[in-house]
Amino acid sequence: MKSAPIHFGTIALILDQYLKENSFTSIFFLVDENTHVHCLPILLADLDNLYAYEILEVDTGEQNKNIETVENLWLALADLGADRHSLVINVGGGVITDMGGFMASTFKRGIKFINIPTTLLSQVDASVGGKNGIDLHGMKNMVGTFTEPEMVLIDPKFLKTLEQRQIKSGLAEMLKHGLIHDRDHWDNLVQLLSHNADDLAPFIMDSIEIKRQVVEQDPYEKGLRKILNFGHTIGHAIESESLETEFPLLHGEAIVIGMIIEAFLAESKGLLNAEERFEICDGFASLYALSTIDLTLFPHLIEWMSHDKKNKNNAINFSLVNKIGECTYNVICTENEIRLAFESYNNWVA
Amino acid sequence: MKSAPIHFGTIALILDQYLKENSFTSIFFLVDENTHVHCLPILLADLDNLYAYEILEVDTGEQNKNIETVENLWLALADLGADRHSLVINVGGGVITDMGGFMASTFKRGIKFINIPTTLLSQVDASVGGKNGIDLHGMKNMVGTFTEPEMVLIDPKFLKTLEQRQIKSGLAEMLKHGLIHDRDHWDNLVQLLSHNADDLAPFIMDSIEIKRQVVEQDPYEKGLRKILNFGHTIGHAIESESLETEFPLLHGEAIVIGMIIEAFLAESKGLLNAEERFEICDGFASLYALSTIDLTLFPHLIEWMSHDKKNKNNAINFSLVNKIGECTYNVICTENEIRLAFESYNNWVA
Repeated sequence: MKSAPIHFGTIALILDQYLKENSFTSIFFLVDENTHVHCLPILLADLDNLYAYEILEVDTGEQNKNIETVENLWLALADLGADRHSLVINVGGGVITDMGGFMASTFKRGIKFINIPTTLLSQVDASVGGKNGIDLHGMKNMVGTFTEPEMVLIDPKFLKTLEQRQIKSGLAEMLKHGLIHDRDHWDNLVQLLSHNADDLAPFIMDSIEIKRQVVEQDPYEKGLRKILNFGHTIGHAIESESLETEFPLLHGEAIVIGMIIEAFLAESKGLLNAEERFEICDGFASLYALSTIDLTLFPHLIEWMSHDKKNKNNAINFSLVNKIGECTYNVICTENEIRLAFESYNNWVA
Repeated sequence: MKSAPIHFGTIALILDQYLKENSFTSIFFLVDENTHVHCLPILLADLDNLYAYEILEVDTGEQNKNIETVENLWLALADLGADRHSLVINVGGGVITDMGGFMASTFKRGIKFINIPTTLLSQVDASVGGKNGIDLHGMKNMVGTFTEPEMVLIDPKFLKTLEQRQIKSGLAEMLKHGLIHDRDHWDNLVQLLSHNADDLAPFIMDSIEIKRQVVEQDPYEKGLRKILNFGHTIGHAIESESLETEFPLLHGEAIVIGMIIEAFLAESKGLLNAEERFEICDGFASLYALSTIDLTLFPHLIEWMSHDKKNKNNAINFSLVNKIGECTYNVICTENEIRLAFESYNNWVA
């Protein structure tokens, strides 16, 4: 699988040129309620070679990233006459690019699509690697394909439309890139005096570059690519659980807790020394408001973890940082080891 | 996309060896009510290296080849602990191999699967080319992927489990292979004195070989592969319409009518001479009981055709035989031309 070109900066020019050079029979923008209002108009204003298009809008939020939504989108494409020479342009966060990629890669056995990630999280994470997918009864990304978009267009000006909470969610994945592959990146991000869109923009391409290096060595996640899952085995479980509550966590918020607990796990397995585990905890604590996890939920959380895509033979499989800037994978942990890590986290937070 | 190896004959030996050489964490057979009873026991009896497996059964019939069924199958896989090192073995007709291929190619972004087609239709048609899919609100194969199975195992002994009507349905696709690519194949099949499973078995590999030659030149159906769609633009519409009635046609039965009407269409477009059009009609009439089409349904049928995957810019696109053994593609026909072909068919049948 050849990776898609990623363009950073004034993306309208590039998209306009692409539309001019390719004659699509029809063009569909997939947006959510937010990007429909805040991002699409900015984009459309600068496109001179776009003469006609349809807009597909879905409700905002991870809880809509499911097969029912995709079925409605497939039907809308069919009703609006989409054919194999149509183009889908996904404009939004990871929910939109994940779901839009899945929709396009399966409609009529695959039509072309472009991703325009508009959140920090999707710019640094969903933009690279050709993964798409939907959740299945709350199980994260249980269904999907590996299909590269035609291109990925990243414009930092969309970040100005985000709340600080969204920015922090994306920062979590950037910090992860540092922890698993590049200590300097971690240090740079932690040491920033403030963490708003303008401060983080210069580091977006560094994060993308780290992810791209990893993915290109192992596009189908047979081995190395699993390191990108650091924090996600526990983080996804916490996220799935929280999606069933009234106040769901954002992906990055759940992943931060996942990374800290997995750092405790790495320490207990003798993979990570206490000093660096402390440095990781300290870094996150300086950036995020953390609270304890209700351990009566632990059996639920283990149930979610048991569906993790890295698992084999029903054993729960982790990717764990062994020092800041380096990560191992295929580490099997027992339920008891995992529980102790949760307890260490709770004691540390309290 | 590399095509999957196709094995013909005593398939249990080959499957047994494959299971021995590969250590899957779990094995899932996908069957329908019929193949669960009639085919799976035959297969299981000869497998010595199969120690544990799960059976996923779906209701028989094309009307179940939809996203609701696949969603239930994905959930069953998740509940039964399927992971990326699990194997799916699809045992059944085209509905099972199409739906099972789609299920496997999207579960956890793709797990391995083997196809064991048990009907004549699926042996000569669904076995080659890596297409899978489901119907969307009656629109045939509107959603799916191009994904090759690990291998295709064809055992003519399964054909003995079929009713004659099923055999005839498969014969329709074999006749199509002759019409579009190999006059000898057409002649051989038409001239057979009887058309039961034993008579047709020697010609199965010829049909597969024709399809393989076409698909290998154009795996993603950019051009040449469209010739395999001869009879299907109209045939799929008739099939979709009939699926909504109490007595749905089998795929091959609908395609026979589609091929005859499209032969009239080819004649009216000056592509096919009257003599060969007559020979095609005559050949099918000697093998199938045909009746007229209620033309009050014509607007419905056009509506189904408008969703055909070959279409571009809302024009209905046909692949038409221009002489027996040869087929052209990307032939645009107007609604009026199509109606006249239906009328010619009705007049000829009456």
